[in-house]
Amino acid sequence: MEVTRTLARFIVEHRYAGIPESVRHEAARSFLNWVGCAVGAARHETVERALAALAPFSGPPEATVLGRGERLDIMQAALMNGITSHTFDFDDTHLKTVIHPSGPVASAILALAERKPVKGDEFLHAFILGVEAECRIGNSVYPEHYDVGWHITGTAGVFGAAAAAGRLLGLNEQQMTWALGIAATQSSGLREMFGTMCKPFHPGNAAKNGLLAALLAQRNFTSSNQGIEAKRGFANVLSTGFRPEEITARLGETWEIALNTYKPFACGIVIHPAIDGCIQLRDEHRLKAEDIEAITLRTHPLVLELTGKKTPQVGLEGKFSVYHSAAVAIIHGAAGEAQYSDACVRDPRVVALRDRVTAMADRTVHEDQVRIAIRLKDGRTLEKFVEHAIGSLDRPMSDADLEAKFRGLAQGILSAGETDNLMRLCWNIGKLEDAGEVARASVPAAQARRKA
Amino acid sequence: MEVTRTLARFIVEHRYAGIPESVRHEAARSFLNWVGCAVGAARHETVERALAALAPFSGPPEATVLGRGERLDIMQAALMNGITSHTFDFDDTHLKTVIHPSGPVASAILALAERKPVKGDEFLHAFILGVEAECRIGNSVYPEHYDVGWHITGTAGVFGAAAAAGRLLGLNEQQMTWALGIAATQSSGLREMFGTMCKPFHPGNAAKNGLLAALLAQRNFTSSNQGIEAKRGFANVLSTGFRPEEITARLGETWEIALNTYKPFACGIVIHPAIDGCIQLRDEHRLKAEDIEAITLRTHPLVLELTGKKTPQVGLEGKFSVYHSAAVAIIHGAAGEAQYSDACVRDPRVVALRDRVTAMADRTVHEDQVRIAIRLKDGRTLEKFVEHAIGSLDRPMSDADLEAKFRGLAQGILSAGETDNLMRLCWNIGKLEDAGEVARASVPAAQARRKA
Repeated sequence: MEVTRTLARFIVEHRYAGIPESVRHEAARSFLNWVGCAVGAARHETVERALAALAPFSGPPEATVLGRGERLDIMQAALMNGITSHTFDFDDTHLKTVIHPSGPVASAILALAERKPVKGDEFLHAFILGVEAECRIGNSVYPEHYDVGWHITGTAGVFGAAAAAGRLLGLNEQQMTWALGIAATQSSGLREMFGTMCKPFHPGNAAKNGLLAALLAQRNFTSSNQGIEAKRGFANVLSTGFRPEEITARLGETWEIALNTYKPFACGIVIHPAIDGCIQLRDEHRLKAEDIEAITLRTHPLVLELTGKKTPQVGLEGKFSVYHSAAVAIIHGAAGEAQYSDACVRDPRVVALRDRVTAMADRTVHEDQVRIAIRLKDGRTLEKFVEHAIGSLDRPMSDADLEAKFRGLAQGILSAGETDNLMRLCWNIGKLEDAGEVARASVPAAQARRKA
Repeated sequence: MEVTRTLARFIVEHRYAGIPESVRHEAARSFLNWVGCAVGAARHETVERALAALAPFSGPPEATVLGRGERLDIMQAALMNGITSHTFDFDDTHLKTVIHPSGPVASAILALAERKPVKGDEFLHAFILGVEAECRIGNSVYPEHYDVGWHITGTAGVFGAAAAAGRLLGLNEQQMTWALGIAATQSSGLREMFGTMCKPFHPGNAAKNGLLAALLAQRNFTSSNQGIEAKRGFANVLSTGFRPEEITARLGETWEIALNTYKPFACGIVIHPAIDGCIQLRDEHRLKAEDIEAITLRTHPLVLELTGKKTPQVGLEGKFSVYHSAAVAIIHGAAGEAQYSDACVRDPRVVALRDRVTAMADRTVHEDQVRIAIRLKDGRTLEKFVEHAIGSLDRPMSDADLEAKFRGLAQGILSAGETDNLMRLCWNIGKLEDAGEVARASVPAAQARRKA
């Protein structure tokens, strides 16, 4: 079975008309959410450090760093936007594989679209095809590949970036086959790096390397024609399991981006049910922290394993504390980046409520569920069972939810008017005359003036 | 055991005075051989295609493409010189691990040395330390890692480039630990790519990515502190075997570059004994092709497995034909790039002799041995047993051999005077005021005038 060539042929030959409207809308949702994440993290220290290291070596300033305005060569811009968009770990998740699909793909092609104008429908099409390639390759090796220790957003992401960039560059079937091979031989990213700046580096690196693969293939730089499936190719070297039919079956009939999900809260997905339930109880009963005697959470065992930090000291540690997360859900009715700041983690009111939270593992509770009991000082006990957390496939965030999240992220970076304009462009990405407009509209006016 | 930190500390703290003169001389030999390989392949199609793809995106033109004269940003120059130097597969080999050590390391630091002048002794020191890092990491996972399907020159090379570049950038211990971690999470390169342009791409990519790792670490971009040894770090994810003591034991007492070897012939190492023996018989007996009835080779079985192509059609296939190689050894007394050209493979005189060569596997013959019998038309039979092929650790190429090889490679690219000048600089690399001079001296005068 010629897996690599079959996938390459599909990416080269597929027609936009074959994509259902619902899939296009999901792609726009993914893209909007991704742009919001990138803008929100634009001033983060991770981004500042990477930019300081790279900018002195940039080539022609053809592509924008989202939310900032610096212009870099397209490979550096792809790297930077991939880093920025994953810095908060708040971008989209393909739950079947835990890939964050948009980062590698959108970062690569948005840079290309600023170099030479690309129509919105071609952009959205390339984006959907890139996500299809990376998620199908992910499906073919997940979970074995992830269990070995690979950060699948990096390792599979490089294929997505190569596929999408190759499509926009107009590669032919042989060149696309090479592009996927050149991507395969750069596939990298270790889970050991979780909790360090290298985690967001992975989707950035995948975007940059995928773009490089497409540019080399465009010049007929050769690779193996079986980069994915060969005995010493990607799947067999980087995974103990491989199901090639996950890549080739029903191509063009099913769309992986339709299975994409969005995080409502700026922390690991396993805490989401607890936050969701606490916010629901708060809103239903107009709860105040002062009224609460104790909060008890019964969660899937994994929640305590991954996020059992009782007394976080800094913001990042708060993301690994189900206790802190429940407390801010009650007090702030939210769990965005602001709730995971150093200040919030040390806020006496939050600390006091956090100390009254108990969590226990319960094997009858699934990963996207939680059982909450809140004992009030007046003697009452309020209970809530969350069947599916908000943001899961069964209870997706609405378009309005995504807009609210976007506004929260853009706050402090863009004005309200700039935010609304940028969201409008994202929703209409498929209809723009020039997709690169999104990148330029992400730059705050004050910043744009300074760069001019 | 803190493997990554121990190695980082060694690279940061080691003093040049601790390196024996013989080791410095071996490093100069490695470097000279590497420069010759890069210059020789400067006009190869692989290089032309990569350069065409990359040059439009280059940043400040601070570093030279060897043997050509184009100037690119340092990361692109590192990539290009890594590709060029391995295009003929004629660069140095650390036989213990089959790593080609110089490519990733020299490509990264020669680019750096053109950005900001570096004294020759600091350059040579960084080069030796980079080779030490990559080869020790290679030793710790070889052969399991290679057997899985990784091209170890790429996967281990990125550490060597990061270490050497980090040393020249003056990283502290923590930064060097991060640099090795950022290298670890980019480690990549599949053996499936052998026989395509991606093979020489691997050392280039390792050079570029290692340099990127050092530049990021310099800005305190963080990674795991256990990038090599952690449960989900490099060694455990990319290999089924790991001996950490190969990295940490006797650091600064033994030097891996002392175990480096150089290929006299422009083909896979397994054919070398046969070529060596045929040239010896030719020279001893003033053999002519017309005098020969038949040539019989008894070789290690691997030779036929890897290079058993009876009737090669193009130059590259000639490299995988022990028959063609024996014929040119008799007719030309050499097996350089000229002997693996399309023209030579189709030369009727070569074809005629090639058809009179027989090869058979013999398990009593070791990998660097051969038994040759040549039956002459006058009835005599000449025999030769090669105990250790020229170029092996037991029968190393002399400095004069390396110079002759260099001249052969540079022919058609540089004038005789330019070649002599460039070799002089390579031999004296440890004493130069500005190591970057080597890169600039590799540019043919005609080319330099055209660029000016």
